[in-house]
Amino acid sequence: MTGRHGLSAKDSRPVLAVDWGTTAFRAALLDPAGQVLHEEASSDGILTKKPAEFAPFLEAVYGRLAENLNPLVLMSGMVGSANGWQVAPYCACPAGFGEVSSHLHWIDPGRVAIVPGLSCEHVHAPDVMRGEETQILGAMRLMGLSDGCFVLPGSHSKWAWVEGGRILRFKTLMTGEFFAALGQHTILAKTVDAGAPLDEAAFVQGVERARQPDGLLHQAFAARTLALFDRMGPAALGSYLSGLCIGEELRAMLGSAAHQEAQPPTPNLVLVGSAQLTQRYALALRQHGVRSRALGSESTWAGLHALARTL
Amino acid sequence: MTGRHGLSAKDSRPVLAVDWGTTAFRAALLDPAGQVLHEEASSDGILTKKPAEFAPFLEAVYGRLAENLNPLVLMSGMVGSANGWQVAPYCACPAGFGEVSSHLHWIDPGRVAIVPGLSCEHVHAPDVMRGEETQILGAMRLMGLSDGCFVLPGSHSKWAWVEGGRILRFKTLMTGEFFAALGQHTILAKTVDAGAPLDEAAFVQGVERARQPDGLLHQAFAARTLALFDRMGPAALGSYLSGLCIGEELRAMLGSAAHQEAQPPTPNLVLVGSAQLTQRYALALRQHGVRSRALGSESTWAGLHALARTL
Repeated sequence: MTGRHGLSAKDSRPVLAVDWGTTAFRAALLDPAGQVLHEEASSDGILTKKPAEFAPFLEAVYGRLAENLNPLVLMSGMVGSANGWQVAPYCACPAGFGEVSSHLHWIDPGRVAIVPGLSCEHVHAPDVMRGEETQILGAMRLMGLSDGCFVLPGSHSKWAWVEGGRILRFKTLMTGEFFAALGQHTILAKTVDAGAPLDEAAFVQGVERARQPDGLLHQAFAARTLALFDRMGPAALGSYLSGLCIGEELRAMLGSAAHQEAQPPTPNLVLVGSAQLTQRYALALRQHGVRSRALGSESTWAGLHALARTL
Repeated sequence: MTGRHGLSAKDSRPVLAVDWGTTAFRAALLDPAGQVLHEEASSDGILTKKPAEFAPFLEAVYGRLAENLNPLVLMSGMVGSANGWQVAPYCACPAGFGEVSSHLHWIDPGRVAIVPGLSCEHVHAPDVMRGEETQILGAMRLMGLSDGCFVLPGSHSKWAWVEGGRILRFKTLMTGEFFAALGQHTILAKTVDAGAPLDEAAFVQGVERARQPDGLLHQAFAARTLALFDRMGPAALGSYLSGLCIGEELRAMLGSAAHQEAQPPTPNLVLVGSAQLTQRYALALRQHGVRSRALGSESTWAGLHALARTL
């Protein structure tokens, strides 16, 4: 039996997995069991490539990692956006392995495809992700979960609610971008060292402060006045401001269970991201009495491998 | 009878009122009744002046506006900050005309003084203002109010609660700076025309959206997705994002009446600021069922004149 793209129903070729984002490129050759055989990473994000440069760049990577192995090439991330190689139209939620797999955007049918991002319709506006859907599918597979709440912290954090193996809905929060913009482009730049290592006590203080209903617009100004009155130094204020921003994210997502669109996270809260970020989120979640488990960049490879196995 | 600075108890000299901020300078010669006789304004904010340049600059203004009139010179604003002419230490709340008057920072006793800013101690951090105290005192005098809630929108909005003629406490919200940083230094810069004229419908839509508990970190991302899906153009999105930010300010201040530190605004809500901003705030307040009255830059001259009359 062959599928509509001429692939065998149980495709067991190796997979050249590609995570091609705005500012970074990663590729891994995965064996049929999903183990990483070779891997490479660079700063060749999509913004460094002109339209005609995507194909030759991938050919070169293919030559280095997978020559003569005839792998399936699966790419996720912003490579499928308007600024990327080709636009892979969004797949609408609810979406699981089946929906995403059947919406793969084939560049070279049977050989090279881009995983579509997901879209989701809220009452007031749509929401989108690109790349995170692959991480979530991978995390589901790695954790053996078909239900739960998956949180992917970052410039644009994603909270995704999964039931029966499908992503029902998700919300984006601009937490990382707010933190960066506040620390670099407001008066707080004068008093806050946003790049300082984590000061746990100051961070937790920020998370706790964010639980009050008077909001981030007011609370953030403390990162100015605590310095003016010599009550906190620049490094501690970096963690305090980080705690305020991440704390506001948690307040909004954990506290809005009564809201029509939201949904309380289940006990299976899974964090997916860099160790540096998931550490901060785990700490903040503990302040809210919520336990979490964390996964890293292995989720992307697991997701791309699992998607390849659906073909 | 003479006061401790050698002034007569009822000082009836003209007043040279100076509003010296970070990026702007304004001065007005006021007659004993508080009427403006001459006025000038320039972009000679304190950041354009070295320490030795403040005195000669003021001398020149004095010469142009008030030569031979022997006025009392009263200055308010950031001129009294660490980056200004001399530091006028903060006066602690509660503070009314009496407290502010007795904390004037005299540069030339009996002739030239800086009005002190106010400080206020919240549970988690202190709060400060410089210049707004003079506008609030002026607004109280112009409105004939000794109780009420005074809102001064801006880069750093101030909400001040006044009882019995004294400012009991106040809160700063970084609304204007958030709006500017989001519109210029995040992904929203690509889709939002932050400088476009007010689009009332889009603005109100943002204000209403901000009443939902899922927070600005999430809500702001709509200014990206509504553009991605061609549902709102850049000019309308500028007003929508403005509505989200101002709406978040109102949600936090009007909705936190149960919060230990907060205090519900009284029916006497007075807006003080530029017509462009107070128009937006009045519109947003109406969405919350709160009526307001507005005053402009005349509040500063009224405040300085009223302070001079206390000497």
